[in-house]
Amino acid sequence: MWEENNVTSLLTIDYPIIQAGMAGGVTTPELVAAVSNAGGLGTIGAGYMSEEDLKQAIRSTKQLTAKPFGVNVFVPEDVRVPESEIDAANELLQPFHRELQVAPSKSASHSSATFQKQIDVIIAEEVPVCSFTFGIPSKTIIHRLKSHDIRLIGTATTVKEARLNEQAGMDMVVAQGSEAGGHRGTFDTSFEQSSVGTMSLVPRVVDTVSLPVIAAGGIMDARGILAATVLGAEGVQMGTAFLTAQESGAKPPHKKAILHSDGDDTVITSAFSGKPARGIENAFIRYLRLYEHNLPAYPVMNTLTKEIRKAAGSLDRPEFMSLWAGQSASLSQEISAGQLVKQLVEDIKIQNERSIL
Amino acid sequence: MWEENNVTSLLTIDYPIIQAGMAGGVTTPELVAAVSNAGGLGTIGAGYMSEEDLKQAIRSTKQLTAKPFGVNVFVPEDVRVPESEIDAANELLQPFHRELQVAPSKSASHSSATFQKQIDVIIAEEVPVCSFTFGIPSKTIIHRLKSHDIRLIGTATTVKEARLNEQAGMDMVVAQGSEAGGHRGTFDTSFEQSSVGTMSLVPRVVDTVSLPVIAAGGIMDARGILAATVLGAEGVQMGTAFLTAQESGAKPPHKKAILHSDGDDTVITSAFSGKPARGIENAFIRYLRLYEHNLPAYPVMNTLTKEIRKAAGSLDRPEFMSLWAGQSASLSQEISAGQLVKQLVEDIKIQNERSIL
Repeated sequence: MWEENNVTSLLTIDYPIIQAGMAGGVTTPELVAAVSNAGGLGTIGAGYMSEEDLKQAIRSTKQLTAKPFGVNVFVPEDVRVPESEIDAANELLQPFHRELQVAPSKSASHSSATFQKQIDVIIAEEVPVCSFTFGIPSKTIIHRLKSHDIRLIGTATTVKEARLNEQAGMDMVVAQGSEAGGHRGTFDTSFEQSSVGTMSLVPRVVDTVSLPVIAAGGIMDARGILAATVLGAEGVQMGTAFLTAQESGAKPPHKKAILHSDGDDTVITSAFSGKPARGIENAFIRYLRLYEHNLPAYPVMNTLTKEIRKAAGSLDRPEFMSLWAGQSASLSQEISAGQLVKQLVEDIKIQNERSIL
Repeated sequence: MWEENNVTSLLTIDYPIIQAGMAGGVTTPELVAAVSNAGGLGTIGAGYMSEEDLKQAIRSTKQLTAKPFGVNVFVPEDVRVPESEIDAANELLQPFHRELQVAPSKSASHSSATFQKQIDVIIAEEVPVCSFTFGIPSKTIIHRLKSHDIRLIGTATTVKEARLNEQAGMDMVVAQGSEAGGHRGTFDTSFEQSSVGTMSLVPRVVDTVSLPVIAAGGIMDARGILAATVLGAEGVQMGTAFLTAQESGAKPPHKKAILHSDGDDTVITSAFSGKPARGIENAFIRYLRLYEHNLPAYPVMNTLTKEIRKAAGSLDRPEFMSLWAGQSASLSQEISAGQLVKQLVEDIKIQNERSIL
């Protein structure tokens, strides 16, 4: 049985299908609970959340499900960007400020203090699973979480990063292939070498670490889940497939862009946040492409574009939004998240009964 | 049975395992014949071959096998590069000319005339299979080849390119994922949008065209073949896996670099040829990275670096060679090509007997 493995037993879930902890309001309590209630693992994307917001999100989710769910956090980076660089970036962004009638921002970055408080909330609220993006937290934090019996999931975009996750004591690791939508989880490898396709990344990570491996990137249906299983993964993490779910909090123009994708329209860009991320190509990305390598680093650039993205979302101007999406966006469906999990499980059973080979 | 499908029946081979038609001397008659004799499809990489060389390669291969094999050709592009651009590129290449004691080249590009002659040879020598990279040939050529009952295999890096191959009358299409080593086959899509991982590309191409789809990119072992099969491919094309075979004509430092790859050391570069291609990162790639987008277009740049690559190969200077390799290079083996095909088929049978799911 494909679903009886280390991932389902460690997470005490029925099916090794994890909804990615997409940040920025996508992972409503309704979405997270629907996935967990259907037997997968829902995840609150806490990347940009304050302590209070995270507490609220966890409590609301608990009211909708008694099943396990997770919280995804961003490991913070200490970044210092000179004032002049921020001014230069704001100058570049002027046409967008003008068009959308928003004021330029000053940077107020995601700090280590916020991260510490998120960890405190996760422990206090007894969330059973915590996953990390953009790096590996300190030994102290890992030790604290583990002493509370919280399962830890790391993210790797290369074999080397997977090994670092294992050494740090993660319980399992997501192998994030280059097909994946949203931010690359890369933290210890050059961008050029870390854009590794799922088909190549998964079996090599499986060969290297003894942790259970969760495949991510380009997986939208039973075919993708079975292929990941054949490659040695014991679970999958899916983002784009859940972003268009009815319960998802993604802005309507974002959902629409994914649902109408005709395929091969995503690119990797640093224009929105200062860090490489995959989304549907639009005017904003094209406009900033020439300057992309001289923008302030993440998370500073992310803060500078925040009001632009927000206004564009409200004004239905998808050409200025970060339309994060994976390379298989054209396989997305408008469906309830619970129904999607059910359908995946059904389709796998059908394929399993036929001799697929 | 995984091997009884449209690809094996159209190509009249035992197993749908195609050795990629790698150019530049890799595909010796011994390699091509070994793959075909083992029940796969060997392919002569004729990309850079003259009429005479191709004729000789086909005849030598025929002496070593009575089984079908193919020839891969490059669809030519009409490129005009001003003299000044060639001079500028040669100036950039000066440190390499000096270090390796070679003279700067003037461009003599792969012409449409050469391509026509290659097609004539394929027809005259009754080669049963012809595959194309870098585009789709004229209707006249497709008609001529088909009227001689030659099977045609196109190459696509996006869904759109797959559709164009179908419309042009190809018999099957290779879906080349971004994991693949060597040149990207892209011909109708921007580079940013055409770097699609195999896990995403294959199922979407399968859903779009009614041709049999052959998966390529990151496939090195039975796991990869089974995953491709689960995604809907009816065959696989493998390059890197055969490049290190004993019969391959790849230069020893090239084989060594792949066999010693510790993973995630490949990048996509236009520095060697003016066209994006994947290889192991080295000093040459790093040195030219800043100028990469201002180099003469393919095939002009390819001609300009030819003597450098050749000298570096002879002098065992891998830091100046084009070490083409896919993202799964670290899974390569030093093995005979026939043995590799046999091992793949055995491993698939074993996996098939166990219930893999």
